[in-house]
Amino acid sequence: MDSTRYQRGQEALARIHGHIGEGVMTALGDIAPDFARLIIEFPYGDIYSRQGLSPKERQIATIASLVTLGNAPTELKAHIQGSLNVGCTREEIVEVIMQMAVYAGFPAAVNALMVAKDVFEELDKTPET
Amino acid sequence: MDSTRYQRGQEALARIHGHIGEGVMTALGDIAPDFARLIIEFPYGDIYSRQGLSPKERQIATIASLVTLGNAPTELKAHIQGSLNVGCTREEIVEVIMQMAVYAGFPAAVNALMVAKDVFEELDKTPET
Amino acid sequence: MDSTRYQRGQEALARIHGHIGEGVMTALGDIAPDFARLIIEFPYGDIYSRQGLSPKERQIATIASLVTLGNAPTELKAHIQGSLNVGCTREEIVEVIMQMAVYAGFPAAVNALMVAKDVFEELDKTPET
Amino acid sequence: MDSTRYQRGQEALARIHGHIGEGVMTALGDIAPDFARLIIEFPYGDIYSRQGLSPKERQIATIASLVTLGNAPTELKAHIQGSLNVGCTREEIVEVIMQMAVYAGFPAAVNALMVAKDVFEELDKTPET
Amino acid sequence: MDSTRYQRGQEALARIHGHIGEGVMTALGDIAPDFARLIIEFPYGDIYSRQGLSPKERQIATIASLVTLGNAPTELKAHIQGSLNVGCTREEIVEVIMQMAVYAGFPAAVNALMVAKDVFEELDKTPET
Amino acid sequence: MDSTRYQRGQEALARIHGHIGEGVMTALGDIAPDFARLIIEFPYGDIYSRQGLSPKERQIATIASLVTLGNAPTELKAHIQGSLNVGCTREEIVEVIMQMAVYAGFPAAVNALMVAKDVFEELDKTPET
Repeated sequence: MDSTRYQRGQEALARIHGHIGEGVMTALGDIAPDFARLIIEFPYGDIYSRQGLSPKERQIATIASLVTLGNAPTELKAHIQGSLNVGCTREEIVEVIMQMAVYAGFPAAVNALMVAKDVFEELDKTPET
Repeated sequence: MDSTRYQRGQEALARIHGHIGEGVMTALGDIAPDFARLIIEFPYGDIYSRQGLSPKERQIATIASLVTLGNAPTELKAHIQGSLNVGCTREEIVEVIMQMAVYAGFPAAVNALMVAKDVFEELDKTPET
Repeated sequence: MDSTRYQRGQEALARIHGHIGEGVMTALGDIAPDFARLIIEFPYGDIYSRQGLSPKERQIATIASLVTLGNAPTELKAHIQGSLNVGCTREEIVEVIMQMAVYAGFPAAVNALMVAKDVFEELDKTPET
Repeated sequence: MDSTRYQRGQEALARIHGHIGEGVMTALGDIAPDFARLIIEFPYGDIYSRQGLSPKERQIATIASLVTLGNAPTELKAHIQGSLNVGCTREEIVEVIMQMAVYAGFPAAVNALMVAKDVFEELDKTPET
Repeated sequence: MDSTRYQRGQEALARIHGHIGEGVMTALGDIAPDFARLIIEFPYGDIYSRQGLSPKERQIATIASLVTLGNAPTELKAHIQGSLNVGCTREEIVEVIMQMAVYAGFPAAVNALMVAKDVFEELDKTPET
Repeated sequence: MDSTRYQRGQEALARIHGHIGEGVMTALGDIAPDFARLIIEFPYGDIYSRQGLSPKERQIATIASLVTLGNAPTELKAHIQGSLNVGCTREEIVEVIMQMAVYAGFPAAVNALMVAKDVFEELDKTPET
């Protein structure tokens, strides 16, 4: 195990997803512990830790991709929350999703907007701390 | 025809794609003139003309989507060129494509990097004016 | 806002989806009011309002596309209902879905048949008015 | 081998694709003769030979699906030609493709229109017999 | 109806899916009895009954395909169970899914691992008979 | 850089793809040297180097995935060749592709068979050494 990559990945995961990222890793760890480690090492340790794009730009790219895939609502939800965490506004997230109607079709955009609506409504219900 | 939308769309098309956009519209106009008009009106007049994201952020989202689709190399080429036109660097475009390996798989990213390589090599061959 | 397109779109939306279309638009309007308007203007005002195909033929094309996408069960449900509204029979809808096994694979067709089954069963439970 | 299905499939194949269908079957036969037979038996013998939709309606569904897939230009070309063979007009084919921009995105529709353009131009070059 | 193919298909279906396969066929039979028959005849009677790959190798290919599609969790669940039935181990199924991160992206692999986790947990709850 | 992973990845790459793998890495290295390294480290160093599936089983899974994606003919070609290198027969490769018609549709299978045909014909032309 490459401890630098793993540590760098955990930091990127925490920066983007906060505590929620840990929960997913625990669930994955039950069935595929090596894969849980690889997710921290490759996407977070190797990619999200790179320079060259701002954290906000990386989230815009990820949301665009997840809307286009159209079959990963759990990841989309996690990255909409993550986009807010790194400084995107709700309006910017909605703009990215709307733009995807052009490339991935209207059903992909409509379904993603419904996911965003859920994320925003949950946040509005959560009492400030 | 809504002349404001159409005009706004033509301006966005020219800003992103320069003269190359016109060529695509002419080719489409031969077989589906209404569709050529709708492309200017909806994606460019309704979406790319919106506030809320910078032109650079919109291109990042578009490149992420086209890499994820994986079956639109012509549009990807046009939007890599368009990204450079609105201020993205080659390094930023490469970063967006690399990140897509996480969501759309390595073949999608590798094939998109080969498209980017073609665009960059063509630009390097073109004499400055 | 182009009132003619919007009005034409609303008429097409009502013709295909009846009251159900309004509900989707209201839900979308909460998070992305401009996108709710764009859906009425572009798909319904610009595309479904065109001549050149019968309403029934347009629904056959839409169902084929949604079955092929395989990740838009809400839209598929809305368009199966819409197909019945514009004159398709249940048997014709089932035939279109079956044919999609050839192009989009059996899982796409099986899942779409299950959506159709839900729509038909709901209709059979609804008392005639 | 089920000779009835096979014969029924060959008739459907000839009705839709004419002589061109035979060429594809010969090419496939070199590498996977059983698969060449299965294509005649299942898609053509089992599906296209069914009642319940007109040949024109079946081609509309197929074109919609192939445009949505976006990665099968050879099959799309064959079925645009086949659509003309069973009575679709060029205008109807263009309408189906345009409508797919709503569900599969604009790149899918633009690329399919370019395929249609090729088919129509080849037909215009072919001397009448 | 080709009784040999149908019977061969039923045997393959039973060998892979056990009693669960019958349930799906009954549900499909309500809405599309011909399609229920075609599923037994083509995928099971024509493909899974072939020589040339071991039952285990065929399940590996199917799981890889269903993970890549990313929108067929019901079929994936059925084939994870089917893979165990023909002799794959849980570890082998997890390996195939992990490998799909390379080609279909991490969200596809993560979601498939969650489906596998559900299947394995259900099996652990079921009392041995 | 984690030299163990990189070295392990290079060995897996060489075992599967022979000299051809190096060419792809060189081409990628011109535009995205870090990505060339990441391909060796993650897919080959982290995934293909794992125990738990035989090399042949891993290639069956990869071919199934690439046929299902349907938009990566270059990678499919490389992995058909790689499958032969690790001990798959031509007949087994054809069987995997045929089976994909069930899940990914007939166009995906037909196009992949044509890629396989190209690979096999090139091999038959190459003089033995």
